[in-house]
Amino acid sequence: MSASPFSYELIATDGDARAGIFHTPHGDIFTPIFAPVGTQATVKAVTPAQLTEIGASLVLSNTYHLFLRPGAELVAEMGGLHKFMNWPNPILTDSGGYQVFSLAKMRKIDEDGVTFKSHIDGSTRRLTPEISIEIQEKLGADIIMAFDECAPPEDRAYNELAMARTHAWAERCLMAHRRSDQALFGIVQGGAFADLRRQSAATISSMDFPGYAIGGLSVGETKAEMAEMIEVVNAILPTNKPRYLMGVGAPEDLVNGIQRGIDIFDCVLPTRLARHQAAMTHLGRLNLLNASFAHDAGPIEEGCACYTCRNFTRAYLRHLVVAKEMLAATLVSIHNLFFLLEISRQARQAIQESRYKQFAEEWLVGLDAAE
Amino acid sequence: MSASPFSYELIATDGDARAGIFHTPHGDIFTPIFAPVGTQATVKAVTPAQLTEIGASLVLSNTYHLFLRPGAELVAEMGGLHKFMNWPNPILTDSGGYQVFSLAKMRKIDEDGVTFKSHIDGSTRRLTPEISIEIQEKLGADIIMAFDECAPPEDRAYNELAMARTHAWAERCLMAHRRSDQALFGIVQGGAFADLRRQSAATISSMDFPGYAIGGLSVGETKAEMAEMIEVVNAILPTNKPRYLMGVGAPEDLVNGIQRGIDIFDCVLPTRLARHQAAMTHLGRLNLLNASFAHDAGPIEEGCACYTCRNFTRAYLRHLVVAKEMLAATLVSIHNLFFLLEISRQARQAIQESRYKQFAEEWLVGLDAAE
Repeated sequence: MSASPFSYELIATDGDARAGIFHTPHGDIFTPIFAPVGTQATVKAVTPAQLTEIGASLVLSNTYHLFLRPGAELVAEMGGLHKFMNWPNPILTDSGGYQVFSLAKMRKIDEDGVTFKSHIDGSTRRLTPEISIEIQEKLGADIIMAFDECAPPEDRAYNELAMARTHAWAERCLMAHRRSDQALFGIVQGGAFADLRRQSAATISSMDFPGYAIGGLSVGETKAEMAEMIEVVNAILPTNKPRYLMGVGAPEDLVNGIQRGIDIFDCVLPTRLARHQAAMTHLGRLNLLNASFAHDAGPIEEGCACYTCRNFTRAYLRHLVVAKEMLAATLVSIHNLFFLLEISRQARQAIQESRYKQFAEEWLVGLDAAE
Repeated sequence: MSASPFSYELIATDGDARAGIFHTPHGDIFTPIFAPVGTQATVKAVTPAQLTEIGASLVLSNTYHLFLRPGAELVAEMGGLHKFMNWPNPILTDSGGYQVFSLAKMRKIDEDGVTFKSHIDGSTRRLTPEISIEIQEKLGADIIMAFDECAPPEDRAYNELAMARTHAWAERCLMAHRRSDQALFGIVQGGAFADLRRQSAATISSMDFPGYAIGGLSVGETKAEMAEMIEVVNAILPTNKPRYLMGVGAPEDLVNGIQRGIDIFDCVLPTRLARHQAAMTHLGRLNLLNASFAHDAGPIEEGCACYTCRNFTRAYLRHLVVAKEMLAATLVSIHNLFFLLEISRQARQAIQESRYKQFAEEWLVGLDAAE
């Protein structure tokens, strides 16, 4: 049996914060890392060349969306997702579970899986752990996710049910998983309930996954609950595997998550905000439509090294927004993605220099001051 | 008196076709050249970095649009158009005349100028030769255009009137023009009437402009008429100044125009087509929405060296179009702009190697075969 192409190398720790490298067949992921989301096999309004310049390494794409359109078979026929979307670096696909529960119409869940109607054309579709793995194998991402069920964070009865199903489905995903060039990550659920989270972390980490994710957070619980859930789960997850906090991308959540030992984040937030002319800064969000920027010759953020801040003023960006020019979305997406990747890069540096706590405090003070 | 920073250097001729260099304060323009259009101080969906990679040198922006929004004063306050839109290379602004006659509502023309209602907010605005020059001086492009009137090509009486006004306005523009770091080009009008075109070419070239444009073509006349008008005008225009065919950007019009001695072209066509998923090729246009491309693993055009063709399949581009992803407009714009710039680059090479006629024939045969 040949060695797995996947391994997590722990480089440094600082408190619970970790700097590491996750080795994949498409390159090394230096953690902690923020992964831009390319829902439909494209990070909206940004080219792969621009993503490379931003310093992205891992990109996420959504199985639910690609399953419905253009279909996993087409992506496989085109040589897989890396080739299809022209991203030669690591890719992660989620399982489709989250979108089935948030986007699909008229879903019907049973122990075996979920039947739902496509939000695109209303056609009836079905996802099970086995089908999700099959689709993800066709897509060919480096990291693939177990099919799980995400329940509302405060509903205990539903969370108990969903967690049990998530555990059963995780076993089935492990059984169904075949491609050795793909790392299948398990997902911990349990809502905002510490005891359920502990139980789920223990169960999922008892299965031999090369990485673990925390699902069902940033879906309505408080910031304090999110922090507590991360802490109780990470106290149980093995230290020799990467830890991925799914769907989280607010700057303060990155800083807080890294402090509690998270290695990987993803979120549509930076690109979605950009399409609504909101730019992320150390002092909170700027709405570029604001008239106060009409004559502002400064960049989105002084000192930011992104392409947008090096070359364009707030006045110009506001003009693009007012004139409804597509370039606005591109330039603000570039900034927002760079901003989050820069947090993860600076965090990594701070961990390696044993000053993460100070880094985090400085960060959070700025954001607090802005509120 | 110091020497003008503008001069046209004729490098080679092949029949009537010319290869040259137009020197400007923001760099040399190797002619023949196609100029992408950045109507609102942005070439739609494309960053300046991407334009540079495409090989663009001259970019056009529209005075009418910038006058209305964000206003010439703001652009001047931001250091001028080069800095505002982050294009350090040559820029050309038109006079606003064409848009006043094609876009504005309720325009009222008199000998002094035009009063019209903004198509954006209905406010009443006025443009005269003097105001157009003043706005263009504030915008700060390298090449600025005389304020002219473009009449429907087949209406002789209107063309006589509009031509006379264009000539009078050209004189006034020359008088109003002050900045020595801007080259003011005169514009020949006269519709589809050879005698009027001759008269206009003689009149305008009797005024000392550093460059001459042919306006009022590609607005409804036949291809044969366009070719004839270019021929009669270029027979009169001086050979030691650049010749600019305004608003023309179909591939065959470039090939035919260059053959008749045109040096500069501009058009919104490549980017507008791109936003309607039409890709330009040597064999005509591809509608990327076409189902026949769903499984097509080839690029838009085999052998094309643009970023899009080097990295993305027709199947992927079709997926982006179907999924309404903004990246489609960006990637197809990059291809279409590269395609037209590549025509002008290859044309220049062919002229320098005295094989332009052959180059043009090969080009046009391909397009004819596709029709």
